[in-house]
Amino acid sequence: MTEHIYDEECRRFQASAETVGKRWSGGILMALYLGSTRFSEILGRVEGLSDRMLAQRLRELEAEGLVERDVIPTVPVQIRYALTERGTDLMRALQPLAAWGQRWGTPARV
Amino acid sequence: MTEHIYDEECRRFQASAETVGKRWSGGILMALYLGSTRFSEILGRVEGLSDRMLAQRLRELEAEGLVERDVIPTVPVQIRYALTERGTDLMRALQPLAAWGQRWGTPARV
Repeated sequence: MTEHIYDEECRRFQASAETVGKRWSGGILMALYLGSTRFSEILGRVEGLSDRMLAQRLRELEAEGLVERDVIPTVPVQIRYALTERGTDLMRALQPLAAWGQRWGTPARV
Repeated sequence: MTEHIYDEECRRFQASAETVGKRWSGGILMALYLGSTRFSEILGRVEGLSDRMLAQRLRELEAEGLVERDVIPTVPVQIRYALTERGTDLMRALQPLAAWGQRWGTPARV
């Protein structure tokens, strides 16, 4: 009987891979990891990223507990973004994947 | 001047994350990593995966150099799938991501 691997562990692995694999999420997480905090800063660091897509991905990453959004009550209000502990831990866990990308180069686009 | 991070390294990181993050790819790579070689075996191990989607992902993973497809000239012909060296190296690089998934549980689906 083939051992069914789509158990909890594989489901989590698949979900984690999909979280990170969404178009632009890797670049946005990398920008935050490297210290960007403002919307315009992140936008400026990830080539080709649109305002609309960045806003959407930030909402998703926030909902997934990877990014936190701080509202600074100045006039006008200022918004700062940062990785949560979970998000920072994720970026550490992704360093070997980044190193893999260095070793093997960008896979052929399909 | 905001240092533009979308350089080669970040592009590769984004591409690697997207390769793995595509729906079903993680589960299929895991099945191959755990020893499945036949189409029907992989299909049986990844819950909810359709024939059509498995065939498509296998073609993509092959085109990206992560999976190899061997044709055994029996009658009828037999097809076997396996991770390439690049694919096996990727799965090793993903273990910390799998461990992260264990630590934090499945992110809220968005």
